[in-house]
Amino acid sequence: MRPSQPSVPPARLRLLHTRLPAPGFGGDYNPEQWPPEVHAEDAELMKAAGVSLVTLGIFGWATSEPTPGAHDFGWLDPHMDSLADAGIAVCLATMTASPPPWLARRHPETLPVLDDGTRLHPGSRQHWCPSSPVYRTHAVRLVERLATHYAGHPALALWHINNEYGCHISRHCHCEVSTAAFRAWLRERYGTLDALNSAWSTDFWSQRYAAWDEIHTPRAAPSFRNPAQQLDYQRFSSDELLACYRAERAVLARLTPDTPVTTNFVPVAKTLDLFTWARELDVVSYDSYPDPHDPDAAHRAAFSYDVMRGLRDGQPWLLLEQAPGAVNWRPHNGRKPPGRMRHDTWQAIAHGADAALFFQWRQSRGGAEKFHSAMVPHGGPGTRTFREVTELGRELRKYPELLGARPAPADAALLLDWPNWWALELDAHPSTRLSYLDAALAHHKPLYDASVACDIVPTDADLTRYRLLLVPHLYAVSEETAARLTRYVHDGGTLVLSYFSGIVDEHDRVHLGGYPAPFREVLGLCVEEFAPRPDGSWAEVIRLEGAEAVMAFEGELDGLPAVTRHAYGAGTAWYLGMLPGPPALRTLLDRIRAEARVHPVLPDLPDGVQARTRITADGRSLHIVLDERALTVDVREGDRR
Amino acid sequence: MRPSQPSVPPARLRLLHTRLPAPGFGGDYNPEQWPPEVHAEDAELMKAAGVSLVTLGIFGWATSEPTPGAHDFGWLDPHMDSLADAGIAVCLATMTASPPPWLARRHPETLPVLDDGTRLHPGSRQHWCPSSPVYRTHAVRLVERLATHYAGHPALALWHINNEYGCHISRHCHCEVSTAAFRAWLRERYGTLDALNSAWSTDFWSQRYAAWDEIHTPRAAPSFRNPAQQLDYQRFSSDELLACYRAERAVLARLTPDTPVTTNFVPVAKTLDLFTWARELDVVSYDSYPDPHDPDAAHRAAFSYDVMRGLRDGQPWLLLEQAPGAVNWRPHNGRKPPGRMRHDTWQAIAHGADAALFFQWRQSRGGAEKFHSAMVPHGGPGTRTFREVTELGRELRKYPELLGARPAPADAALLLDWPNWWALELDAHPSTRLSYLDAALAHHKPLYDASVACDIVPTDADLTRYRLLLVPHLYAVSEETAARLTRYVHDGGTLVLSYFSGIVDEHDRVHLGGYPAPFREVLGLCVEEFAPRPDGSWAEVIRLEGAEAVMAFEGELDGLPAVTRHAYGAGTAWYLGMLPGPPALRTLLDRIRAEARVHPVLPDLPDGVQARTRITADGRSLHIVLDERALTVDVREGDRR
Amino acid sequence: MRPSQPSVPPARLRLLHTRLPAPGFGGDYNPEQWPPEVHAEDAELMKAAGVSLVTLGIFGWATSEPTPGAHDFGWLDPHMDSLADAGIAVCLATMTASPPPWLARRHPETLPVLDDGTRLHPGSRQHWCPSSPVYRTHAVRLVERLATHYAGHPALALWHINNEYGCHISRHCHCEVSTAAFRAWLRERYGTLDALNSAWSTDFWSQRYAAWDEIHTPRAAPSFRNPAQQLDYQRFSSDELLACYRAERAVLARLTPDTPVTTNFVPVAKTLDLFTWARELDVVSYDSYPDPHDPDAAHRAAFSYDVMRGLRDGQPWLLLEQAPGAVNWRPHNGRKPPGRMRHDTWQAIAHGADAALFFQWRQSRGGAEKFHSAMVPHGGPGTRTFREVTELGRELRKYPELLGARPAPADAALLLDWPNWWALELDAHPSTRLSYLDAALAHHKPLYDASVACDIVPTDADLTRYRLLLVPHLYAVSEETAARLTRYVHDGGTLVLSYFSGIVDEHDRVHLGGYPAPFREVLGLCVEEFAPRPDGSWAEVIRLEGAEAVMAFEGELDGLPAVTRHAYGAGTAWYLGMLPGPPALRTLLDRIRAEARVHPVLPDLPDGVQARTRITADGRSLHIVLDERALTVDVREGDRR
Repeated sequence: MRPSQPSVPPARLRLLHTRLPAPGFGGDYNPEQWPPEVHAEDAELMKAAGVSLVTLGIFGWATSEPTPGAHDFGWLDPHMDSLADAGIAVCLATMTASPPPWLARRHPETLPVLDDGTRLHPGSRQHWCPSSPVYRTHAVRLVERLATHYAGHPALALWHINNEYGCHISRHCHCEVSTAAFRAWLRERYGTLDALNSAWSTDFWSQRYAAWDEIHTPRAAPSFRNPAQQLDYQRFSSDELLACYRAERAVLARLTPDTPVTTNFVPVAKTLDLFTWARELDVVSYDSYPDPHDPDAAHRAAFSYDVMRGLRDGQPWLLLEQAPGAVNWRPHNGRKPPGRMRHDTWQAIAHGADAALFFQWRQSRGGAEKFHSAMVPHGGPGTRTFREVTELGRELRKYPELLGARPAPADAALLLDWPNWWALELDAHPSTRLSYLDAALAHHKPLYDASVACDIVPTDADLTRYRLLLVPHLYAVSEETAARLTRYVHDGGTLVLSYFSGIVDEHDRVHLGGYPAPFREVLGLCVEEFAPRPDGSWAEVIRLEGAEAVMAFEGELDGLPAVTRHAYGAGTAWYLGMLPGPPALRTLLDRIRAEARVHPVLPDLPDGVQARTRITADGRSLHIVLDERALTVDVREGDRR
Repeated sequence: MRPSQPSVPPARLRLLHTRLPAPGFGGDYNPEQWPPEVHAEDAELMKAAGVSLVTLGIFGWATSEPTPGAHDFGWLDPHMDSLADAGIAVCLATMTASPPPWLARRHPETLPVLDDGTRLHPGSRQHWCPSSPVYRTHAVRLVERLATHYAGHPALALWHINNEYGCHISRHCHCEVSTAAFRAWLRERYGTLDALNSAWSTDFWSQRYAAWDEIHTPRAAPSFRNPAQQLDYQRFSSDELLACYRAERAVLARLTPDTPVTTNFVPVAKTLDLFTWARELDVVSYDSYPDPHDPDAAHRAAFSYDVMRGLRDGQPWLLLEQAPGAVNWRPHNGRKPPGRMRHDTWQAIAHGADAALFFQWRQSRGGAEKFHSAMVPHGGPGTRTFREVTELGRELRKYPELLGARPAPADAALLLDWPNWWALELDAHPSTRLSYLDAALAHHKPLYDASVACDIVPTDADLTRYRLLLVPHLYAVSEETAARLTRYVHDGGTLVLSYFSGIVDEHDRVHLGGYPAPFREVLGLCVEEFAPRPDGSWAEVIRLEGAEAVMAFEGELDGLPAVTRHAYGAGTAWYLGMLPGPPALRTLLDRIRAEARVHPVLPDLPDGVQARTRITADGRSLHIVLDERALTVDVREGDRR
Repeated sequence: MRPSQPSVPPARLRLLHTRLPAPGFGGDYNPEQWPPEVHAEDAELMKAAGVSLVTLGIFGWATSEPTPGAHDFGWLDPHMDSLADAGIAVCLATMTASPPPWLARRHPETLPVLDDGTRLHPGSRQHWCPSSPVYRTHAVRLVERLATHYAGHPALALWHINNEYGCHISRHCHCEVSTAAFRAWLRERYGTLDALNSAWSTDFWSQRYAAWDEIHTPRAAPSFRNPAQQLDYQRFSSDELLACYRAERAVLARLTPDTPVTTNFVPVAKTLDLFTWARELDVVSYDSYPDPHDPDAAHRAAFSYDVMRGLRDGQPWLLLEQAPGAVNWRPHNGRKPPGRMRHDTWQAIAHGADAALFFQWRQSRGGAEKFHSAMVPHGGPGTRTFREVTELGRELRKYPELLGARPAPADAALLLDWPNWWALELDAHPSTRLSYLDAALAHHKPLYDASVACDIVPTDADLTRYRLLLVPHLYAVSEETAARLTRYVHDGGTLVLSYFSGIVDEHDRVHLGGYPAPFREVLGLCVEEFAPRPDGSWAEVIRLEGAEAVMAFEGELDGLPAVTRHAYGAGTAWYLGMLPGPPALRTLLDRIRAEARVHPVLPDLPDGVQARTRITADGRSLHIVLDERALTVDVREGDRR
């Protein structure tokens, strides 16, 4: 069990708020790429745009330590000083995301290795093995020098540890060092080989280990790799990166105890168990990159913002990166039409953001991201983009009360669990076409479309706050969590559980006794067989044991139950043995919501219009109303709470 | 030339028959995955289901030899004893398919290497280099201990050597050990480098070898690899695995001379030259996994059963693995609806099976195959699957006379040749879209659809038994085989040869003199040019030299001969210069069959209904009539033979 | 800047002309693959076919140096002698394209390595690292022996250095030797690390180099690799192969100073900067393989012939390889119908070819190219192919005046630039769907369809000769080149520039100041944003600054300028902000051509009929008129020039 989440921002975070005039506004600032005359223009333009917060130094390692041990922050000092003078707060990066080329040259063993043995090389970024003690030692030394140098600097408002952990390859490494670290991690987890052999079901396929050093990370193999091994490797990989984070945070806690720390998460990613990570941050940060060509982009963004808000139990979070226009890293990159950037920024604030920063302040002239849009484009300030940036910066300053304003509580929640994600998407399943993220989005969508607020919660959340709980594909679940969900229904909650839930335990071992064994009682049914259909969809043979059928299958399983409802204790448990198409799912969820008395944020919103509410420190409700198609934004005062 | 095939089962096989009450029924039994209370239930349920034969110990190496040399079969003894007590025969695996993790740890050089240099690791199964003397030594030692331990045990009825040779990666290895073995194999085959250089046409592209140690397995290369080298590497790979098999068999022949041996072949696979392998078995075994989502699955199964029956010249074979329901290893796995398992089992028996076993007895709780269906599902005995299993087991006991019953002789045959398969599908061809297996299936289908029995025969079969012989794409053919086929027609046979036949010799060197040089006389034509069409299909320019055109091309080659007929000696030679669509091919084959007097097994069968006949030891004909759509099975007494 | 191109063939080339009776006719001759009786037939058939030029010895290294240092050309002498006797000129290969197997065995470090570390092996061809001093030493030694042996031989007419440089893998290597060579190349190019760091924009992503030996070739990396590094690596790769070429040429220049040299280029390939390479040849050679299944094949061929003619400023070139019929290396290979080979040969001559050779004389019996058609097919001389070859050989002899005849000057040109090609197709762009070759073909097509002659020119060409200049996607351009194009318009030229031009400099650094900064003045516009559309096409937001809109966007950018026209000085600059569909582009180009007074080669040609003109030494115009559909060819006398 995770410790309970903080419901009040920590003291360090309140200090951050005192540095900002309103929700933070700004971007990544990389002055090392530009000559002094540009720096002067930057200062003017930041003022014009109402910038209040910038991120500095993300890729500053090579500049700050050009040769091993020769740390020198002289290049950065003038920027820190002038930003302080301009009243702009600095989110200072620890610079450890990308080591200088000399590290790989001197210590090639720090380079990550893929599961087929390919060793990755420098030339892009994040080319380091998370388990490497050499990398960690160099990183921690850099952070010590940096924190010592800037402790107490008036610009320093927030630490940004590393960058986008788990993005690119730095998540998974199969080198010899990682292999040894994996063994140590397993030894810590299991204590004895017998325990590991049992957890990993190694009697299958003659895999029983007789010594710890026989164990590998899941390297390329002739056939399906042991699923429990794969699952533990994903846990290990998340943990190893977290250990890197913690090593840096420990230095900062010692040298700058009053400065809050964060790190930026990438678009809801499978790699890191964010609920575990978020406990270690003072404030959650997020990089949001909706695809302008994706018609579901606004919904995807809303979902991910709900995740970020949920990571620390409803605490506001920072939108630390977004693009003013196009990105560069998709194969084909659409622009954001006029108004889209403003709309998207307000959408983030509606869903709990306390800042709206961009990657990046000024568009790079060279390098791999020069076609990523920026607040100041290649074309300079005389562009639509910079005009819209300036207008947005000024607009946000009109809402100082939104900074730190509490997101209004939701009556509905969706359960998300990283280890389940890892387990669900392993191979050798009845169908490998199940995507946890797609399923979560599909379940979240009918609430979103109805402008119903929805929290995203972990398995150990306090569920009593919610009248409706959506639980997509909870394939891997402990007896304890299953019991909590059962109790939730018994005590009056409405649970919507979808197919391929309750199948295995945390070691990917089947809960025997008829699927889904730990949920059979609360659901009032048994799944006799999985029956994926030739069209790629899911189906299954459900035997009712108390539940009633609400929808039935067509085709091969014609007339057999597909969606069921079961009154249990004071509550109701719904089960989806298939995924209805969007209109049918909307109809079904509308019915379930109505029964559970879960309502839209505001009544009578037109189709396509969203509203979310934040509650100011003095108890005022501010409704932010967003029209995704017209790209309009309206901030309305609501009732006091 | 291969030695002539046995037409009578060997004495050892008759001993196996005495152990079974009827066609064998049962499955893979892996008791090491379960605690004792489950073993007790297993015994009861096996009895209820009429189990008569189980496969034990496939993945038992790690359990039996937990550390090097510490062999101990104590875990297995109680199971052998209680199965003997229950009158259940045991097909005992030699356990060598998957070495314990310690082998790779101590001898990493036993791990297989892909053609790009990637070394595969443990974590799944079959992670061994077939040429490794280290692996072979350990395997043979295990087999010695095992055979010594169980020689004379009352449960031991059949040896199951290794498992699914050639499946997964264990077929092809490019490590240094394999490279040396390949050189030795070539030296044995060619004697001199001059002979090799000539066979491999090394004057092309400056590839002439001056020393044996200059030769590699066909590793990743800048362009098309030498085709003769690729072809010999496939021969070598089949032979190296066969050498592993032989090493185990030699131990068993010495220690348990009266016990028959088998190994299970995987669905008709390109990897092993099964006609060569089958000579070394007492009985052929097969693992059959038709895809419930494949509308042609029943025909594919029938074809593969015809192959298995043909491997030892019509001798019955064992269905050693099938799934009662879904498998787990396709991306999306359909279930088998009610009646499908029974139908498919009877289909195998109709085509010559003497046993119907399943993978596996009890569905695993953990590991990579836990979602592979089993006779006892996760849901336990109270499931449709176990009910159908029990009914099937009881039904088979009613037909003791089917055990060992001889499949009725066929009037038609289809020629299949592994080296031709390897050669046909090499790269740098007029079209790489030719699939030998697809072509064989396409030629076999019109006979199947008409319920005509068809044998599958090797190039050295006694062809005089057949009135009709189908020969798809015999691209690589020796002068001698071509002469045998010519003589077959001359003596009165009807030959159907399809395009891209008679092109090269066994070293992939063109038969000069106009395609298809060794068949020009019997076919009465010359192929002047290959002319693959933009739509991906085949066409060619045929010059008639005695043959008559029966079908003509449309489009670019409009009016030129596409299908020809040539009366030659007492017989007829047909040539297909294209592959007609299924209805046209059916019409054509119906005509050819009528001329050749080849008829359905039973007259007047409705469309979609199949019949095949087995002849009991006392000469009774039993017609097994199968309706693939209604999933009905009918066993009818026929005439005495 | 490249030195100005030669407009008159060098003296050595005139010597070649004296050896030929008419445009050269023949093919690759590989007698080492055949026994003496075949050689005798070859001599007869060559005479019958009118062969005047053959390429000998391409893959002769292993035969000529069977063990290291044991050079012996005895096998080749009789062929050289008998060809001389028969009056057939020899294009003698230096034999260095494919080393014998012993080189890799003794020096495995000569084998090339892919960017993921995979080392390629012998077994096909061209398995050598271009930077390997070991390979180069062995190659140069072979050339020395060969040139010494055949200097002054009456058959020797032309040297063919290596073969198809840059095809297959020999273009790019990432081994340790290549890495060191890359560093040396960079040191030569940049002088200081500061210069390199600036050119490569290494302040981005913490990539600043502190020592030369920290730099790698662009190996597999966690994310997008540095674009300037990738670009320089492509320059380096082209240069390293050129260094191999030069090393051989230096030997030949010393030992056979009067014999011209060439090497054959593969179908317009991205790998080599051909404008740089062509300076080092006496005559350009080309291998042309239009795909019979490609409906645009004739146009693609015409384009590539225009490229070859442009490489040395209009000098005739040699068609050194084509296929009489099908090739073997596509997945599915169509044949050439009757008349196609003749038509295609004349098409090459129309576009400037001085020879028409085939790969190969006699179709190989074995090896990877045995299904590549040849002048003498497997079926022998009694085939359609050999008949057509013979007719063609005789026909060409009727046009001795075509040998060396000057291609008529064109009024239109298309600018092609290899470094721009490399830069344009780097990753992390607004769209990765831009293909330079496809764009060049699309721009060339409307001229081709109208039978308008078009030259292909480099950035430093003399543009004053052209009334119309097409410049597709000149993404990477120096200020100097941009100024030359601006001056071209100012002085009266008509420029058609298409989108994503003028974006970066030669180091992939953005030209700041609003896209396309160096072309804004001449175009009279600014591109404010790139706006690739969901359908995969390109769009952009154009702000007019003097230009007029001629076509407008539809959809999201409805009504905004898409194609513009700007009168500038005495000329006109057109800009395409999108690629219109073929009919609209044809209409647009017809209008532009009409304004620029650029006309078809002959008036009133029917649709689908092409004409091109060559001017004989005595000033006669010969119009070659080709009907691509009817496959007819007509050579008409035109006006004297």
